[in-house]
Amino acid sequence: MKLILFTFLSVTAGCVQAQLPDSLVRYVQPLIGTAKMGHTFPGATVPFGAVQLSPDTDTIPYAVGGKYNPDVYKYCAGYQYDDPTIVGFSHTHFSGTGHSDLGDFLIMPTSGPLQLDPGVADAPETGFRSAFQHANEVAEANYYRVKLDDHGILAELTTSTRTGFHRYTFQEQEEAHIVLDLTHGIYNYDDKTVWTVVRVLNDSTVTGYRQTNGWARTRTVFFAMSFSKPFKTYGSKNFDGTSVYRGFWRKFDQTDNFPDLAGQKLRMHFDFDVAAGEQVHIKFALSPVSMSNALANMQTEIPHWDFDRTKREGRDLWEKELRRIEARLPTEADYVNFYTAMYHAALMPTVYMDVNGQYRGLDYEVHTAKGFNSYTSFSLWDTFRAFHPYLNIVNPSRNADMVASMMAHFDQSVLKMLPIWSHYANDNWCMSGYHSVSVIADAIIKGVYEGDAEAALTACVATANSRRYEGIGEYIDRGYIPDEANGTSVSNTLEYAYDDWCIAQLAKHLGRTDVYETFIKRSENWRNMYDSSIGFMRPRHADGTFRREFDVLETHGQGFIEGNTWNYSLYVPQNPAGLMDVMGGRAALSRYLDSLFTIHLPDKFFANTEDITREGIIGNYVHGNEPAHHVAYLYNIAGEPWKTQERVRMILENQYHNGPDGLGGNDDCGQMSAWYLFSSLGFYPVSPGSDEYWLGSPLVQSATINLENGKQFTVEAMNQSAKNVYVQEVLLNGKPMEGYILKHRDIIDGGLLQFRMSDKPGRR
Amino acid sequence: MKLILFTFLSVTAGCVQAQLPDSLVRYVQPLIGTAKMGHTFPGATVPFGAVQLSPDTDTIPYAVGGKYNPDVYKYCAGYQYDDPTIVGFSHTHFSGTGHSDLGDFLIMPTSGPLQLDPGVADAPETGFRSAFQHANEVAEANYYRVKLDDHGILAELTTSTRTGFHRYTFQEQEEAHIVLDLTHGIYNYDDKTVWTVVRVLNDSTVTGYRQTNGWARTRTVFFAMSFSKPFKTYGSKNFDGTSVYRGFWRKFDQTDNFPDLAGQKLRMHFDFDVAAGEQVHIKFALSPVSMSNALANMQTEIPHWDFDRTKREGRDLWEKELRRIEARLPTEADYVNFYTAMYHAALMPTVYMDVNGQYRGLDYEVHTAKGFNSYTSFSLWDTFRAFHPYLNIVNPSRNADMVASMMAHFDQSVLKMLPIWSHYANDNWCMSGYHSVSVIADAIIKGVYEGDAEAALTACVATANSRRYEGIGEYIDRGYIPDEANGTSVSNTLEYAYDDWCIAQLAKHLGRTDVYETFIKRSENWRNMYDSSIGFMRPRHADGTFRREFDVLETHGQGFIEGNTWNYSLYVPQNPAGLMDVMGGRAALSRYLDSLFTIHLPDKFFANTEDITREGIIGNYVHGNEPAHHVAYLYNIAGEPWKTQERVRMILENQYHNGPDGLGGNDDCGQMSAWYLFSSLGFYPVSPGSDEYWLGSPLVQSATINLENGKQFTVEAMNQSAKNVYVQEVLLNGKPMEGYILKHRDIIDGGLLQFRMSDKPGRR
Repeated sequence: MKLILFTFLSVTAGCVQAQLPDSLVRYVQPLIGTAKMGHTFPGATVPFGAVQLSPDTDTIPYAVGGKYNPDVYKYCAGYQYDDPTIVGFSHTHFSGTGHSDLGDFLIMPTSGPLQLDPGVADAPETGFRSAFQHANEVAEANYYRVKLDDHGILAELTTSTRTGFHRYTFQEQEEAHIVLDLTHGIYNYDDKTVWTVVRVLNDSTVTGYRQTNGWARTRTVFFAMSFSKPFKTYGSKNFDGTSVYRGFWRKFDQTDNFPDLAGQKLRMHFDFDVAAGEQVHIKFALSPVSMSNALANMQTEIPHWDFDRTKREGRDLWEKELRRIEARLPTEADYVNFYTAMYHAALMPTVYMDVNGQYRGLDYEVHTAKGFNSYTSFSLWDTFRAFHPYLNIVNPSRNADMVASMMAHFDQSVLKMLPIWSHYANDNWCMSGYHSVSVIADAIIKGVYEGDAEAALTACVATANSRRYEGIGEYIDRGYIPDEANGTSVSNTLEYAYDDWCIAQLAKHLGRTDVYETFIKRSENWRNMYDSSIGFMRPRHADGTFRREFDVLETHGQGFIEGNTWNYSLYVPQNPAGLMDVMGGRAALSRYLDSLFTIHLPDKFFANTEDITREGIIGNYVHGNEPAHHVAYLYNIAGEPWKTQERVRMILENQYHNGPDGLGGNDDCGQMSAWYLFSSLGFYPVSPGSDEYWLGSPLVQSATINLENGKQFTVEAMNQSAKNVYVQEVLLNGKPMEGYILKHRDIIDGGLLQFRMSDKPGRR
Repeated sequence: MKLILFTFLSVTAGCVQAQLPDSLVRYVQPLIGTAKMGHTFPGATVPFGAVQLSPDTDTIPYAVGGKYNPDVYKYCAGYQYDDPTIVGFSHTHFSGTGHSDLGDFLIMPTSGPLQLDPGVADAPETGFRSAFQHANEVAEANYYRVKLDDHGILAELTTSTRTGFHRYTFQEQEEAHIVLDLTHGIYNYDDKTVWTVVRVLNDSTVTGYRQTNGWARTRTVFFAMSFSKPFKTYGSKNFDGTSVYRGFWRKFDQTDNFPDLAGQKLRMHFDFDVAAGEQVHIKFALSPVSMSNALANMQTEIPHWDFDRTKREGRDLWEKELRRIEARLPTEADYVNFYTAMYHAALMPTVYMDVNGQYRGLDYEVHTAKGFNSYTSFSLWDTFRAFHPYLNIVNPSRNADMVASMMAHFDQSVLKMLPIWSHYANDNWCMSGYHSVSVIADAIIKGVYEGDAEAALTACVATANSRRYEGIGEYIDRGYIPDEANGTSVSNTLEYAYDDWCIAQLAKHLGRTDVYETFIKRSENWRNMYDSSIGFMRPRHADGTFRREFDVLETHGQGFIEGNTWNYSLYVPQNPAGLMDVMGGRAALSRYLDSLFTIHLPDKFFANTEDITREGIIGNYVHGNEPAHHVAYLYNIAGEPWKTQERVRMILENQYHNGPDGLGGNDDCGQMSAWYLFSSLGFYPVSPGSDEYWLGSPLVQSATINLENGKQFTVEAMNQSAKNVYVQEVLLNGKPMEGYILKHRDIIDGGLLQFRMSDKPGRR
């Protein structure tokens, strides 16, 4: 029997592979999501690379004089597709976030007389920024090219893990300048840059660092910069006007060819004479530790000046990364969506260590990562849902390293908390929950993280008992967070309850009954938020009464974060059956879901939803935000799986498009893309921390996941078409499957999952 | 013959030792120089210790809103004897500087309700500062004690090399607080503190750091703090009012028992209930590298809570340090002056490395000192004159390490310059010249520095060719700095010429004829500044003409730094014979010197001299500043050595006193004290870089220098008395000496130098 099955699988797999395109990386369109709300960046990077070298199209500050500027929101990734100008190319960018930071070390090549101010978008000639045309723009995996109209310069960007590689081709013989702006930043404001340093080591090598107080409270990034052509002269400007020229340093003219600079806000220019058609290359490496480490990173990763080689090597890394899933898809556009989703789900978290293994920890100390690769930038409120579970299948070794990185964060934290939203040895405390515990439990239960599981459980418990954080103390004492204690008391309570369930699962897995009992009890706290009189989760006062004034459609000020109670009332992924029960059973749940997907959300409520476009909403279901990502799958438990199938395919079709405005909401560090990838494959991790996936309706014709253990898991959609969204039959390794639950082991052991598709709702 | 001599010496030395006091350290009075212009600090430290734990008596800022506050000048060492209150005890202080910095990590114990502002001196009850009485104050080597009247607390301080040790005894049972102020600093101003971090590791351990932009442009000091008694509660205040509470960190109440703090200006309080008579101890360690290094420094140096042991160990170190010269002196007051001078000449430069050898370099990298101990805080314009030559005799291994530290500075400098005035991995570029080259040449020629002498010469030459610095380019091109190019064109030219002579001497020593020729030629550039028509050095224009408007008594705006031309015209230590020649010969030089010491300097000119009191001037000779420190010895070459003898003894008597106002000018990091020590011993290094000392008139009755090579050099003043300031005869190892020149080898080989004193000028 085993032998027969093996042969069968091999034939099938072989069959699929034969029809696969030669290149998958060609389907990656980094521009998807760069218009409106996607907040992705179009620039160059390698999988999970520490450098994201990408154009920034404006310099709008987050706040001036302490006053918030809402326009800054568009620039979370530095680039907005509809903007007419490019300010320059900076080396660090988040992908798809809603708040932001980074934008370190902006480089801009210019021609003609020196301009050291960026100028304004309406009149790019007022500064070093340049107009550009999308017709002259190319964005590929690890390659970005654009013509800078104002300067007559063709700019090309590529990267290795820690090093950006710039190639600038000058059209005419002229005076040229490379501007290095250390004051530039994303979500910038007056005093965000705390300190900057630049050292000009010789006529083609520059090092330095930038220390900021932004979303990351204390963040220092070091750099090393190397020019292929020696600069003729150079100079600096310090934009705070005082500190760099303070004291006896005034003895020097620090603006002119002075190699030893420090101040609050440095901007540099390097000057060249170029011939027509001449190319100037720049290598620009980063380090979280030191300038010497940045130099070593550069010299190790790119010990040459062959731009095309680095571009090709990065492209090869992407091809290898994408080959982890070899999919056949109905249309060319689907290929683009699928592999761009895989691309977007391989940008963050990013490598956070130098080639020698060193990184700067949360304790401000330099550590050496031992036995793991260190990663940073964990947007956990988003990514625990599908992104990390996706890695547990497709890229488990990286996810194990990410869990190890979270554990290192915990060990270095004086608060003794796992990361909430961490980047660059900081926690920025954005969003809610303590969802590290979900990622950790999921990775251990699925056998992905093989580090010290007892220590991991201890860290989870410590975090869940951080009484000072976001109402946890009240939550522990009362079983819910009172409305008056916290502005997002309901969503916090719901999320904590889910997280507690994850801790319970981990405790059970480790045989720690004591911990299990505590946390399984806590995991039922969601019940305390449910107001059966209205059938919704609802803010509750300390005295036990529910808040009187309450709007079920409104997102703001109702006790939830990024979601109204219509969406959040379904947030009990750890116990959907229990939720269905309090809601009144199968039919009641089904009606609720039907309403969710069809109620028209009046404009006045839409205005207060966050991070999404109008298109990011289906009825009152908000796919552009995360809390309802599991919701379409809940029809399964209500006994109407065909509605799950219908809705999933509808969301796949409506919410993901080719083109710059292809994402209806923030990609959120790969979570939106991971939803797409799971759902395209026909299953979804409704409750990470369990070993179960709920079935949906595959978009792929077939897909083979090349597992790290050497096995293959193949999904096949028989009779697949755009209309055939309904599943008639599911076969696992040739045997009909009952129910809607696929186990992690079914995948990881390799095998074949076949869906027989139809245009009519089936029983299953 | 040798045997006989040896026996003779042994007998003599033994004889001297028998009469020496049991304890030398008891003569040290750290309060000397703390009133008026001495700018010394009275607190606790060990020889060359990295921690100088000392009371600060005010918080006057250097500038507010960019405007200079001249009163700040008094607080270079944090303490002014006449002040009525103490603000607290900070851990870093310069000794005797004229500009300043430091004052890191102020600790103040308080009783009663919490006060987090320092308050004002007129009304100490308005803040945490306290009134104090000198009657309740004790300052000894490595021990300081004071009663804080407002709080009823006895404060005691002692140190090890890198760790301050506080003992606070509370008079009454009460509520008590320990304030830790990270905003406090010497020469402070609004934005001097760039960033502060505090981490409360547990109920008795705190770490953190402070980054400043002051005299040192980018200076970061890490700390670890340990309490003998766990604090009950703690809290913070951030005095910029924004950054620490910015962003999602607002989710926390960071003022109350919050262990993870960062912001621009943190002040902490730690709260206790204390019983009457209870003692709270604090250990507070510093590191230039990291918090973990600071902790390791503490744990290595003081692994116990025995305050008296640390106090005793430090006192023993001082006793050992002082025993390097075992002197018999005429009066108790002379003992105090002599051994306090030795104390003041063993405070700076300070150890700049952790117990594991690590330190932060000028290149912002962490280095490990290999083969040397790293030192920082080189006030070279002052200390090249007598302080470093003093070390070359009394403490050569330390001076070798200091030269190695200067070489490391050079290696790490992107400007490729040796230190000018360096502290904490920075150059603050204070004062003029490139006097590192004098220290280096002197140490190599005298056989003290045994590192790579060729590399040292290369560093000296590179520094002397730093064309961008302070007119060096013009100096090289023209042989002098034109008046219009530089405000201190004359003193710079004179100092460069001397420094160039040092380089020439080093080159000659190494057989580098090429370098010798270049620099011996440059060393004669002083001639270009001499206006024979008036007989003074004088500012000169680029066209070769001398500046028309010129005042020979004025210090400011005349082309000199800290001195008028009356003093500076004698600054040709490398070629006094040549100077005498252009001045008109022996008689002319002698007349000049007579006038210098007797002309009354009108008050209007005194007002513009710097760093000295009226008493720091003898006639128009300004002992309180350094440029004329060799001048009294010049009578030797004029053929009137008895005038040297007379003047030296006069200066020793007039310019150095017991008591807080015992120093007539800034001690300048030991230079004033080193002048005292040399002159007391009867000789002085008129031209460091040569191996010669010029004889004066000893103050000691006898003194034995216990050389590091195991030998002893003894000075004996026969027929010594206050009136017998004239030298009748000098015997070196029993043989009459001709002339006034003692060679370094005469000292270092061990031996006996005998002066036969008289009350009448002799021929020699």
